[in-house]
Amino acid sequence: MKILILHGPNLNFLGKREPGIYGSTTLEEINNSLQVLAQDLKAEVDFFQSNHEGALIDKLQSAHSLVDAVVFNPGAYTHYSLALRDAVASMQVPVIEVHLSNIHAREEFRHQSVIAPVAAGQITGFGPASYLLGLRAAVTLVQSGRKKI
Amino acid sequence: MKILILHGPNLNFLGKREPGIYGSTTLEEINNSLQVLAQDLKAEVDFFQSNHEGALIDKLQSAHSLVDAVVFNPGAYTHYSLALRDAVASMQVPVIEVHLSNIHAREEFRHQSVIAPVAAGQITGFGPASYLLGLRAAVTLVQSGRKKI
Amino acid sequence: MKILILHGPNLNFLGKREPGIYGSTTLEEINNSLQVLAQDLKAEVDFFQSNHEGALIDKLQSAHSLVDAVVFNPGAYTHYSLALRDAVASMQVPVIEVHLSNIHAREEFRHQSVIAPVAAGQITGFGPASYLLGLRAAVTLVQSGRKKI
Amino acid sequence: MKILILHGPNLNFLGKREPGIYGSTTLEEINNSLQVLAQDLKAEVDFFQSNHEGALIDKLQSAHSLVDAVVFNPGAYTHYSLALRDAVASMQVPVIEVHLSNIHAREEFRHQSVIAPVAAGQITGFGPASYLLGLRAAVTLVQSGRKKI
Amino acid sequence: MKILILHGPNLNFLGKREPGIYGSTTLEEINNSLQVLAQDLKAEVDFFQSNHEGALIDKLQSAHSLVDAVVFNPGAYTHYSLALRDAVASMQVPVIEVHLSNIHAREEFRHQSVIAPVAAGQITGFGPASYLLGLRAAVTLVQSGRKKI
Amino acid sequence: MKILILHGPNLNFLGKREPGIYGSTTLEEINNSLQVLAQDLKAEVDFFQSNHEGALIDKLQSAHSLVDAVVFNPGAYTHYSLALRDAVASMQVPVIEVHLSNIHAREEFRHQSVIAPVAAGQITGFGPASYLLGLRAAVTLVQSGRKKI
Amino acid sequence: MKILILHGPNLNFLGKREPGIYGSTTLEEINNSLQVLAQDLKAEVDFFQSNHEGALIDKLQSAHSLVDAVVFNPGAYTHYSLALRDAVASMQVPVIEVHLSNIHAREEFRHQSVIAPVAAGQITGFGPASYLLGLRAAVTLVQSGRKKI
Amino acid sequence: MKILILHGPNLNFLGKREPGIYGSTTLEEINNSLQVLAQDLKAEVDFFQSNHEGALIDKLQSAHSLVDAVVFNPGAYTHYSLALRDAVASMQVPVIEVHLSNIHAREEFRHQSVIAPVAAGQITGFGPASYLLGLRAAVTLVQSGRKKI
Amino acid sequence: MKILILHGPNLNFLGKREPGIYGSTTLEEINNSLQVLAQDLKAEVDFFQSNHEGALIDKLQSAHSLVDAVVFNPGAYTHYSLALRDAVASMQVPVIEVHLSNIHAREEFRHQSVIAPVAAGQITGFGPASYLLGLRAAVTLVQSGRKKI
Amino acid sequence: MKILILHGPNLNFLGKREPGIYGSTTLEEINNSLQVLAQDLKAEVDFFQSNHEGALIDKLQSAHSLVDAVVFNPGAYTHYSLALRDAVASMQVPVIEVHLSNIHAREEFRHQSVIAPVAAGQITGFGPASYLLGLRAAVTLVQSGRKKI
Amino acid sequence: MKILILHGPNLNFLGKREPGIYGSTTLEEINNSLQVLAQDLKAEVDFFQSNHEGALIDKLQSAHSLVDAVVFNPGAYTHYSLALRDAVASMQVPVIEVHLSNIHAREEFRHQSVIAPVAAGQITGFGPASYLLGLRAAVTLVQSGRKKI
Amino acid sequence: MKILILHGPNLNFLGKREPGIYGSTTLEEINNSLQVLAQDLKAEVDFFQSNHEGALIDKLQSAHSLVDAVVFNPGAYTHYSLALRDAVASMQVPVIEVHLSNIHAREEFRHQSVIAPVAAGQITGFGPASYLLGLRAAVTLVQSGRKKI
Repeated sequence: MKILILHGPNLNFLGKREPGIYGSTTLEEINNSLQVLAQDLKAEVDFFQSNHEGALIDKLQSAHSLVDAVVFNPGAYTHYSLALRDAVASMQVPVIEVHLSNIHAREEFRHQSVIAPVAAGQITGFGPASYLLGLRAAVTLVQSGRKKI
Repeated sequence: MKILILHGPNLNFLGKREPGIYGSTTLEEINNSLQVLAQDLKAEVDFFQSNHEGALIDKLQSAHSLVDAVVFNPGAYTHYSLALRDAVASMQVPVIEVHLSNIHAREEFRHQSVIAPVAAGQITGFGPASYLLGLRAAVTLVQSGRKKI
Repeated sequence: MKILILHGPNLNFLGKREPGIYGSTTLEEINNSLQVLAQDLKAEVDFFQSNHEGALIDKLQSAHSLVDAVVFNPGAYTHYSLALRDAVASMQVPVIEVHLSNIHAREEFRHQSVIAPVAAGQITGFGPASYLLGLRAAVTLVQSGRKKI
Repeated sequence: MKILILHGPNLNFLGKREPGIYGSTTLEEINNSLQVLAQDLKAEVDFFQSNHEGALIDKLQSAHSLVDAVVFNPGAYTHYSLALRDAVASMQVPVIEVHLSNIHAREEFRHQSVIAPVAAGQITGFGPASYLLGLRAAVTLVQSGRKKI
Repeated sequence: MKILILHGPNLNFLGKREPGIYGSTTLEEINNSLQVLAQDLKAEVDFFQSNHEGALIDKLQSAHSLVDAVVFNPGAYTHYSLALRDAVASMQVPVIEVHLSNIHAREEFRHQSVIAPVAAGQITGFGPASYLLGLRAAVTLVQSGRKKI
Repeated sequence: MKILILHGPNLNFLGKREPGIYGSTTLEEINNSLQVLAQDLKAEVDFFQSNHEGALIDKLQSAHSLVDAVVFNPGAYTHYSLALRDAVASMQVPVIEVHLSNIHAREEFRHQSVIAPVAAGQITGFGPASYLLGLRAAVTLVQSGRKKI
Repeated sequence: MKILILHGPNLNFLGKREPGIYGSTTLEEINNSLQVLAQDLKAEVDFFQSNHEGALIDKLQSAHSLVDAVVFNPGAYTHYSLALRDAVASMQVPVIEVHLSNIHAREEFRHQSVIAPVAAGQITGFGPASYLLGLRAAVTLVQSGRKKI
Repeated sequence: MKILILHGPNLNFLGKREPGIYGSTTLEEINNSLQVLAQDLKAEVDFFQSNHEGALIDKLQSAHSLVDAVVFNPGAYTHYSLALRDAVASMQVPVIEVHLSNIHAREEFRHQSVIAPVAAGQITGFGPASYLLGLRAAVTLVQSGRKKI
Repeated sequence: MKILILHGPNLNFLGKREPGIYGSTTLEEINNSLQVLAQDLKAEVDFFQSNHEGALIDKLQSAHSLVDAVVFNPGAYTHYSLALRDAVASMQVPVIEVHLSNIHAREEFRHQSVIAPVAAGQITGFGPASYLLGLRAAVTLVQSGRKKI
Repeated sequence: MKILILHGPNLNFLGKREPGIYGSTTLEEINNSLQVLAQDLKAEVDFFQSNHEGALIDKLQSAHSLVDAVVFNPGAYTHYSLALRDAVASMQVPVIEVHLSNIHAREEFRHQSVIAPVAAGQITGFGPASYLLGLRAAVTLVQSGRKKI
Repeated sequence: MKILILHGPNLNFLGKREPGIYGSTTLEEINNSLQVLAQDLKAEVDFFQSNHEGALIDKLQSAHSLVDAVVFNPGAYTHYSLALRDAVASMQVPVIEVHLSNIHAREEFRHQSVIAPVAAGQITGFGPASYLLGLRAAVTLVQSGRKKI
Repeated sequence: MKILILHGPNLNFLGKREPGIYGSTTLEEINNSLQVLAQDLKAEVDFFQSNHEGALIDKLQSAHSLVDAVVFNPGAYTHYSLALRDAVASMQVPVIEVHLSNIHAREEFRHQSVIAPVAAGQITGFGPASYLLGLRAAVTLVQSGRKKI
């Protein structure tokens, strides 16, 4: 079982960027703990980060027939990237949307996700643990053989 | 570690009610699988379901000093019960909001949660697995000693 | 054929409450005239009134397999009780929404019903006759063997 | 007692038009069953259908002093014809608004009726039975001697 | 002169709940100071608190012919309970709406009260003193013999 | 203790202007009854009325270091004068907003106050008694030594 | 100088229809007083009334090269007939919009005119005198040789 | 018969200000032509212009018992001065709102008048002739002995 | 293959009406060029224009079983005629919506088409060529044997 | 004559992506049929696809002086890419917007195009034929020597 | 070159008023530093502050032919004074809008300026330096001989 | 002191693109004049332009620890790029937003900036001078040692 971990814009800045909101853990540390959990769950994980909307779409498309699921933190693209939404909708494997912060407790514009309606589900607010729960959700979905519950 | 599993309105009807949306698993089956996971995680779980907004508030208040976290599926109250929101906000332990269905993929009015801004985080769309992920999130939060990340 | 007549909040106050809007007929008088019509139509009617949203849901759920149809005046819950909406949606028998007053001719917030989209139909504005027409509609639907036309 | 049955735009197409929504009964069959019920209720019924907003207004005005009530299905004019609304408001006899389909369960724009606030009441969602219930409502109102309850 | 002091949801948690917003005074202390003022004003006060919307309606209805006025803090029901609004509207004695915090200085959704349009008046923002001012307002209204100014 | 009573636009017309809404008491009579209550409460009151937004701001600024609190009826400026709002916000003493009529029961545009979010609290709907309650609230706040509760 | 007086839907019912709003003067009486004023102003007037949106457009088009100005009361079409708006916009002579009642003091939906932005001007609220003022405005515009000021 | 002609903000700049929109006629020229028409109509006219909202209210109040009608161009205050609205509403003589330009054909924010709902009527778009028509409307209303038609 | 070319309100005025927006080509010239193209495409074309909403519905209904497709320019009815929308929806042959001007580049209210959601597709902005492209689209759809792609 | 065919995000996935909505034709097949038609029309076509908003802008800018027209399917960027809108607006040659699906019949957010107001026109809903009609429109515009009709 | 520095409401309170938002610099200190910069730039500066909307309009009008540019901080009038907007629009010299605080980072209602659309430009967020930059912008515009870039 | 001048989409087209709005100055000329002013102010300037949202984010991130301030014209990304907003928010040095045109005087959608709330301030409407004023603002902020005033 192969799972793509996809990180959106500004997540490479994690730890440096607004630690009051996003915490001091770096993206590398998150990836490492995902690696550890993946081994436990007998899954293989692949990582990709980009600030480019187009590069994230390209990655989703190229991963299309190579992975069994995607754990995706679309960053700020969550709230307006309809192009990413279409790319997610065209995937035949489950895509799990995750967020470090509780987007529903922040600015009004962060409450709405244009990705969520086409994702399998959404996990938000648990810091780095959001990714770990997302990986578990991905494994569960792959095992159930369904794109969505 | 003691965790309250709180089920909102119509969840007692699970399995019978609109299986196309909510699946055929019953509430009892969900509670059983939570029990199993809780043992794994060395946690104790307590269950409560009610169709009454006031009874859910009463339960939260009485659980206030007895539990370490709450996993809460507020059902349709999610979208308008400001009284429940206030009750959740007044809790000093983490409250994790969970939903069986992907509320962001359903009717417009289900996209907004008045509970989420005061919850620790939200997990939505994974069927019964939403509860299991919610229980894991609760345990993680309790172990971190924080009400919210 | 068994039909539940379900009365929502403040309807027990009928006759006392704002007679300019709701008329001077009491709830008992309405129930009596329903009883009379039911006999004509060879139906049995059962009555229930509550000011409690949760109690109305409980009643719907417990009536679920005992009645052939429901005539329901949700009172002010009409306009915001999504929990009642979910309960109505989960019924496998027809639910007919009725209102004494013409809700479309009153305050803006009364124009919208969150129940109507999941009810079989809506009858509004004819005073106590709304219930009688609702009972006829219920009998017609039961006889047609359909939950909705 | 004389009652005008007024059919708005596209209702002449009934049976041919979108049977998934409107059923396969034709307008003639509805008129026939209204005729039968009218005889039972000792009322006389008159029928008129037009696709022309102006013709419906002309008919209402000319019926003004000739009929005791109107059962009116304004079709799609329901949602925007303020000219029809004014014509209905100027009638001194009761006008009952009826709809075959449950307009509250369809597209957003069909949820609002500009006619309803000036009609006596509204019956919606029961197929051809909506007209029959409307006729009964009309007779009840005429007998009560009031334009509105 | 008899006056009902009605406390809505979560007010039993006062002192424990979010003291930054609601202060550290308990509900019992507020009731005690109301008792003292009532004696000064030659009035008798009765207290009731519930988290249940239906129980608050039941109480209003049963107090209907027993009290001369009501001082009511509807808590979060202020913002959406149309059923409570209808119950208040049906009272023939004055109902004074009070709030501890300045609801107009908090979240957007707390700015609107669905109760206020049918209450005699509203007092908001003075902490426990809001109740005391509300009691004085009630006594003044009862003495003037009017439900509203 | 010195308290400024500030009257906004058209309040000099009280008694003459729309008595159906504002009653027949004149501004002078209100001021007199405030004078009487002030003596009871051992406070000194100062009065000012103007139809000029700028004059009301000037008065607030000049009163800034001379009074201990302000009881302010901003009249129609309540709903749009952001300049007055800024002036109120810059005061270091409590400002209590009062209204004769129940602004929440009138036209939609009167429901919102741009002053309230920066005032200590709001009292609305009790006629001349709103001012008297406002004066009591002012004295209570001054005695508590706080600008806001 | 030739001027078309164009009356929209339901104006033929004037005097009979809702006299509380529209007064008891009939359309014929209005036309007569316009005739009298026209003679004073050395103008010729032509009258046309229809309940049909299409007939009003046809009339405007056929009058296009025959009249020097139009005084137009579009009735309820004022608020939604974009087809009439386009017809008015295509006229090369001034079109003056008139209304008997003060449309800005009635229901929300009557505040907006889709015709006004393409008319020369609007006169509203003076009863039959609105037409007379409209005729004077038309003559003034024709004399100035301009379609709009 | 005495009529106040009241000019709002920036109208003293007429002729100098944006002639593309407001024309090149000066305020003095408008006043002169009103003087001439007033003599024809056997009326006396008084003129007042101010850029101060408060001064316009003061003038209305002081004119209250001295004039028989007011012709009022509130300039940009038209769109937000609720204080002026209240002053107009408190007048016992007719107030006619006039505008030089067609406010409905300009920026969105100029389409709405907060004055119009309490004025007798509105005349807009005829340049200086708007005032002359307004004077005629005022005389007609005074002669009819009514504040509004 | 037989195709109905249906022209809505004011299109008979083409060439005369606002040539800055609609160009100077007349409707007859457009019909002629459609005739020529039809011959090329081996199709037969039929023309109908009306300013009457009802007449356009009547025409669609009568053409229902006689034509293979409709090319329809609904003019201003595009933006509000839900009755025409229902008529188009009930057609079993493809209906292609065309516009001379680019409706998305004009006034806000022209951006929305209530017809488009039930049409096969929309072509807008190419002047008379919009009709020619519409005819080609119609032929393509008929040849594909589908009502919509 | 040289025409750029510009394909936006996810169009490279055509045939694979949601065939229920977009059909099973691949982008290569569309390009091939455009090539064939171009030869017929004596035009040369150039193809470019990218998922990158910036790359689409770069391409438009570099094509600026090399092509005579652009046929552009902006994919999901249609609904929010104001940067692409500015790029299109700065082109001195016609840009024709095309869509495979009928965007007006899909989700609410797809009804609005931020590109359309600055494009020459829009063709939507005809599947691959939308491109072919777009190419014809482009050739027509180039031949007319105008950027827009 | 002569430049008017115009300060709106509450700016005389600078230093005293909410220093957390507006800083501790007084208006006099700002004026002094403007004087110094003006000398550097060979310009003469004139200062005026008022809390009165009307007085600010009067000042703009009287400065009309005496100054070459205006640097204007409209304070809270920025967000609603359409009368000031009209006064600014009627100026034939450039008006530069400046703000001490970053209005786009504060309450929602401060994000919109009704003045900005008719000003030459806007400078916001740099504290007292906003005025200095505004003075430079004014000088640049005067030197370019244009009212707006 | 080192300052990054960052140019967003389509700014490389300056001079060529819509000169009516953006003027005929090229980007190179603007950069040259910035270079000259920078020398005067003893600052070093670095230039970067891209049409790619992601590239602008990459640049901001890489400049993060190398520059003392950023002068940023986000072009059309101003109005929707929340990803750029997050990147700006994560900078520890001041970012000054500049615009050539007065965005508040253009289309509605250009009035709102999603960048401004996290920028130090905004300068808009002065053509190339906006950049020069922005550079001065940047230097002032760097000298004050603060990210924001």
